Amino acid sequence: MITQSYQVKGMTCGHCVNAVSTEVGALPGVTEVTVDLASGAVTVTSNDPVDPEQLRAAVDEAGYELVAS
Amino acid sequence: MITQSYQVKGMTCGHCVNAVSTEVGALPGVTEVTVDLASGAVTVTSNDPVDPEQLRAAVDEAGYELVAS
Repeated sequence: MITQSYQVKGMTCGHCVNAVSTEVGALPGVTEVTVDLASGAVTVTSNDPVDPEQLRAAVDEAGYELVAS
Repeated sequence: MITQSYQVKGMTCGHCVNAVSTEVGALPGVTEVTVDLASGAVTVTSNDPVDPEQLRAAVDEAGYELVAS
């Protein structure tokens, strides 16, 4: 299991949290996504390392922005 | 056609707008709902007067608060 945290910009409510969780949770190998709305922290648990470009695309698809780390 | 405006508290993003529009739009006789996110103004067009209690319940169901007018 790999757990990694990312920063996502633009989430303002529970619907935003759901949108990001759904898109990121659909990535290959991802087993859990938790989002802290107040800080914008998105914590992703996966079996294998997540492709950063796929992650960025998933966050973008949900309508938000992955902050460059 | 009757058009009336209401004030709704707590909407923060487009998802919130959709949630309110969907719930209020499902009320009997309602033909159109427009929401101004910045001001919280919800404008409802209907064939017949909308029951204030049904409106309040719909906004509540969406997860927001109708400001007492």
